[in-house]
Amino acid sequence: MGETVAELGEFGMISRIAESIGTDTRGVVTLGIGDDAAVMNLGGATIASVDTMVEGRHYRPEWCGAQEVGRRAAAAAMTDIAAMGGVPRALLVSLAIPSDTPAQWVSELVAGLTEEAAVAGATLAGGDLVAAENTCVSVTALGALPGPGPVTRAGAQVGDVVAIAGRQGWAAAGLTVLSRGFRSPRALVAAYQVPTPPYPSGPEAAAAGATAMIDVSDGLLADLRHLAVASDVLIDVDPDQLPVPDQLLETSSAFNVDPLTWILAGGDDHALVATFPEDAALPAMFSRIGRALGPDTQGAGVAVNGRLWSGRGGHDHFKG
Amino acid sequence: MGETVAELGEFGMISRIAESIGTDTRGVVTLGIGDDAAVMNLGGATIASVDTMVEGRHYRPEWCGAQEVGRRAAAAAMTDIAAMGGVPRALLVSLAIPSDTPAQWVSELVAGLTEEAAVAGATLAGGDLVAAENTCVSVTALGALPGPGPVTRAGAQVGDVVAIAGRQGWAAAGLTVLSRGFRSPRALVAAYQVPTPPYPSGPEAAAAGATAMIDVSDGLLADLRHLAVASDVLIDVDPDQLPVPDQLLETSSAFNVDPLTWILAGGDDHALVATFPEDAALPAMFSRIGRALGPDTQGAGVAVNGRLWSGRGGHDHFKG
Repeated sequence: MGETVAELGEFGMISRIAESIGTDTRGVVTLGIGDDAAVMNLGGATIASVDTMVEGRHYRPEWCGAQEVGRRAAAAAMTDIAAMGGVPRALLVSLAIPSDTPAQWVSELVAGLTEEAAVAGATLAGGDLVAAENTCVSVTALGALPGPGPVTRAGAQVGDVVAIAGRQGWAAAGLTVLSRGFRSPRALVAAYQVPTPPYPSGPEAAAAGATAMIDVSDGLLADLRHLAVASDVLIDVDPDQLPVPDQLLETSSAFNVDPLTWILAGGDDHALVATFPEDAALPAMFSRIGRALGPDTQGAGVAVNGRLWSGRGGHDHFKG
Repeated sequence: MGETVAELGEFGMISRIAESIGTDTRGVVTLGIGDDAAVMNLGGATIASVDTMVEGRHYRPEWCGAQEVGRRAAAAAMTDIAAMGGVPRALLVSLAIPSDTPAQWVSELVAGLTEEAAVAGATLAGGDLVAAENTCVSVTALGALPGPGPVTRAGAQVGDVVAIAGRQGWAAAGLTVLSRGFRSPRALVAAYQVPTPPYPSGPEAAAAGATAMIDVSDGLLADLRHLAVASDVLIDVDPDQLPVPDQLLETSSAFNVDPLTWILAGGDDHALVATFPEDAALPAMFSRIGRALGPDTQGAGVAVNGRLWSGRGGHDHFKG
């Protein structure tokens, strides 16, 4: 039967799928597999992304209530739309749940989906409900693309400024807190339970001339590396430009953790990172964290303070 | 915690969700929860539907290979688009699978999705791949609406003709064959493994003035009842107008089954049933099977030869 998905890895499997599909000769899909979301021309410009949360893998029910699972799932799918420069407009949800799930749990999940949709200016449009052994929530986000075209992962140029919008490291800090059996600091736990992605910053970045963009779901360095490899540049991150918020600093010393671990390797906050031409005026929410260099000496990838990052600390759903 | 989803039932849960969401005040979702697919105005007219298949619930791996699962999942989602009068254009897939799934299985599933997409004129645009305990394939179909508006379940009028396009009862017959440990007749087994929905008949029905339409996924009478209740009519089906194909007839006598059970209660073929004004010219693929009557004597619902159908034999994912 050949290798398993775990052996091939999530990204290996997705590459194989992309190769087997090829490009669309019908002119409907203008940007397909391999970026945050697909862009389709169905008459108007539609942008779509799907994101799935499996109980016990993407959330632990003792740490996330139904409403929080709904908000997280909606946020994950909608941030992919923002990361292309798009505006989320509608959600579809597939709920696969055990038959003995309390109906109240489903109602709270839907409340969470609609609340998070409202934050981004979107609406829950429909879905599907089926029975399964384990809970699996899959959200498809659809959006509009207001700018001239999508901002992909592949457009960063040598010399570009790298900048970030939104919180980074808070969700990872909250996960550390919960993992060690604590329920506070409340702000960090809440950041893990419900992310606060900077949705408007996506289209703002596109309008400001962003050359490439991605949202941080797996880890700052891990996601920047996806962008760097797609763009064939070396992204050098300057940690001095990533100030550690007081809340993270205090908790990191109480828990004896280097707060940069949370900031550089933590996922789930859904910050947006983008590259901009050196002379571009950064949109208000973005702050500079590094620079795109030529790949000639160290190859395409990510460096921290000039030292190439090995790639450990990113997340592969199948390699754990 | 209140009642479970099983106690409330699939349709009860969905009704509760629809109530909690209400109508969209943003003007994006022009038709939301409760029909085959959502209709959204994201600039152009976009129509979307999601359909989920759980291993062991919606298919048994010993009866359906990966490619067949892909074709079935794509067909189920795309027929919902056709049942609104729409044309499927793009698919997104969420794959939740165990880590030890052979990569070959995923590749074959994707091949099945793209093959079925091609049959309907659509393209696989993207997706998501996550690890889970059990395999769960969720397909979102996006399409365009060529006509003046969607054909919903709620527009049937008293006096309308009820007509069907596509095979009905074949998949159920194939399931009977497989359930009894046989692998032939091959045509019936294949009909269960890979449905052949009449995709073009959806937009054709819309153009011909169809007043209401639905695809048969749960059972002919069960799905007609959804339409009848939504339209507040009584649909009277005349079984004499549902001829039993030779293949079903032969197998039904060999297996000692009434073939009308397959035709009236069987799902998974994804035939289209629609109502038309009495003077409309039916599109080529449609044949007349009954009539919409006033609900005044027996209430809204479905009757066979004038006798009200009790509702047994339909499928509720949670009540089994």
